[in-house]
Amino acid sequence: MPKQMSRRSSVLKNPRRQAGKLTAPGEPSHGPLTGEELQLAVRNHSMPLEALRNDTTPAGLHYLLNHFDIPYIDADNWHLRIGGAVQRSLELSLRALRRAPSISLPVTLECAGNGRSLLRPRPLSQPWMLEGVGTATWTGVPLAYLLAQAGVEDDAVEVVFTGADAGIQGGVRQQYARSLPIGEALRPDVVLAYRMNGAELPPQHGYPLRLVVPGWYGMASVKWLSTINVVTKPFDGFQQSVAYRYQQDADDAGTPVTWMKVRSLMVPPGVPDFFTRSRVLAAGPVMLTGRAWSGKGEVQRVEVGIDGEWSAAHLEHSASPFAWRAWSMPWVADPGEHELTCRATDASGAVQPLEQAWNYQGMGNNVVQRVKVTVE
Amino acid sequence: MPKQMSRRSSVLKNPRRQAGKLTAPGEPSHGPLTGEELQLAVRNHSMPLEALRNDTTPAGLHYLLNHFDIPYIDADNWHLRIGGAVQRSLELSLRALRRAPSISLPVTLECAGNGRSLLRPRPLSQPWMLEGVGTATWTGVPLAYLLAQAGVEDDAVEVVFTGADAGIQGGVRQQYARSLPIGEALRPDVVLAYRMNGAELPPQHGYPLRLVVPGWYGMASVKWLSTINVVTKPFDGFQQSVAYRYQQDADDAGTPVTWMKVRSLMVPPGVPDFFTRSRVLAAGPVMLTGRAWSGKGEVQRVEVGIDGEWSAAHLEHSASPFAWRAWSMPWVADPGEHELTCRATDASGAVQPLEQAWNYQGMGNNVVQRVKVTVE
Repeated sequence: MPKQMSRRSSVLKNPRRQAGKLTAPGEPSHGPLTGEELQLAVRNHSMPLEALRNDTTPAGLHYLLNHFDIPYIDADNWHLRIGGAVQRSLELSLRALRRAPSISLPVTLECAGNGRSLLRPRPLSQPWMLEGVGTATWTGVPLAYLLAQAGVEDDAVEVVFTGADAGIQGGVRQQYARSLPIGEALRPDVVLAYRMNGAELPPQHGYPLRLVVPGWYGMASVKWLSTINVVTKPFDGFQQSVAYRYQQDADDAGTPVTWMKVRSLMVPPGVPDFFTRSRVLAAGPVMLTGRAWSGKGEVQRVEVGIDGEWSAAHLEHSASPFAWRAWSMPWVADPGEHELTCRATDASGAVQPLEQAWNYQGMGNNVVQRVKVTVE
Repeated sequence: MPKQMSRRSSVLKNPRRQAGKLTAPGEPSHGPLTGEELQLAVRNHSMPLEALRNDTTPAGLHYLLNHFDIPYIDADNWHLRIGGAVQRSLELSLRALRRAPSISLPVTLECAGNGRSLLRPRPLSQPWMLEGVGTATWTGVPLAYLLAQAGVEDDAVEVVFTGADAGIQGGVRQQYARSLPIGEALRPDVVLAYRMNGAELPPQHGYPLRLVVPGWYGMASVKWLSTINVVTKPFDGFQQSVAYRYQQDADDAGTPVTWMKVRSLMVPPGVPDFFTRSRVLAAGPVMLTGRAWSGKGEVQRVEVGIDGEWSAAHLEHSASPFAWRAWSMPWVADPGEHELTCRATDASGAVQPLEQAWNYQGMGNNVVQRVKVTVE
């Protein structure tokens, strides 16, 4: 549990928060949901869990977390600029990017804050429940290809990606920007994507061009790319040094959020009540299904718990090393109240926790999902 | 304001609520947002207001309100059945429907509950703010064409549309179903749509076939159509006789929700704060823009209020009689705090209210939007 502290002390001790007018959300809350959280919930959308049935998530069901407004970009007059510690700066039109070598890759992306609203106390930000995830096929130019064309200097340490989306966060006026270590940026599977699921990138997913960093939480995959800047010192922008950190309290510098943790989710069986979303199911055989993924290391096992008794689920192959794996397990439902759970284990041996370790920003939650059903 | 009454009395007096286990959301609340409302907010999505810039709303930004789970339908084995008070029952494959005469029509659809969460007390249901709207181009077969093929009997009074989506609402187990008066069903612009914005209907918007009733609130446009049944007595299903009524309290039989009321919305100018969504804008000239629509009668005037002083906005033509009209008004922003508003008037003389009349289910809200901006 976090130490309780006044807003004032956390502001004074955190130099970045002195930069501007303080509009940070404040300390995590034991109170009810706020109007600010509702505003974020109605703007950004998640993936209804029944959409776990799709190998590839349609654009309108794929989760979406945009910090600021969706920028509207005239692609005909747009250019991507690549500069900084490179031998040759580049300025590329969308047409030029479309002529470059391309790859298509199915990638599961999850919001780093997924599950935040389940934490107690609840960090105040986008109030995700469990649905901040999706898998799309992204098509575009390998970033490594363009960095090779530009010629990265030997003393480069990171690559900074800046989007066209602008606003204020934590009192800091900014364009959304994130960096990747140079080794990550040169991976062959990091994509500058201009297509999603075979169609033009939708405005809300970063049109005309976005970064996709397979395996990392979604904050790394910068949308509406304007510039790519190779740097010789670590980037300290707001979204890198203040947001997206594993912190214990406001004064903790914390550690950066990077790879997605191992997680599985289940399609809730039966039918829902409109308002409570409680589930009702007919007695008899039912196939429980879902998906599982991990940023680092393939998912190797999914177990399904029926009222606390765990059994191994059947695992399908994934469409790519960075896409979720489908799982299934038959169950004969007998009348009464039941709790269904699922948990995945990845190649690193990491397994989803039954109780979530808390952190100040509500990042990297991968607690097991619990689905209560009434069998009639 | 509604009379306070016990849950028990409203159950006993409303025979439909005795049909099953009562899981109705309960009386409207002055309290904070509930977990149930958050669950609905994260499932169903609205249209971020900056998407008012689009003539046609991309599928993933168009508002979505699904009562139950998205059903997954095998279109190869799916048939639409048309029966009841007709001379010839029909059973049509998707392929047959695609060979029938088709029309394409841009239509603005708004959720009947849009704006609900702004009401005091707050009816407990999908907690829309102002963004439950969108405009898409729907392509499909005119319903009137198929009804003519089936041959509607002279004593027909309504047509009932039943979707494949199933669940429980207000204690009643049901498939989502709604009816239209026969005169509405025979309008030439009511469409059985299998395409949205030129692409295949997405699963969440009713694949493989949905009804689109231009001018009516969205609840009439039944998704995932299974059957069309011509009836000789008014339909009394849950979504017709209990939900979607203008009621003053739980015992009021109320009147049905039908046509969309006149409404305008504005793209909030400037940039947002991530958490509070408060807006900051640079001093100087800015073009205020938005859209306006009405279900019955063209929008004829939009006025923009700057700190309570109203001026007429410029109105563009609409893409169809049932699509919104774009509006714009230049403003020279001077430093300080300002409140921007907009209100539309339609051909019937109806104008948006400055204060919303309250009703029990939070239906047909069309109060003027108020946008607070800080000009620096």
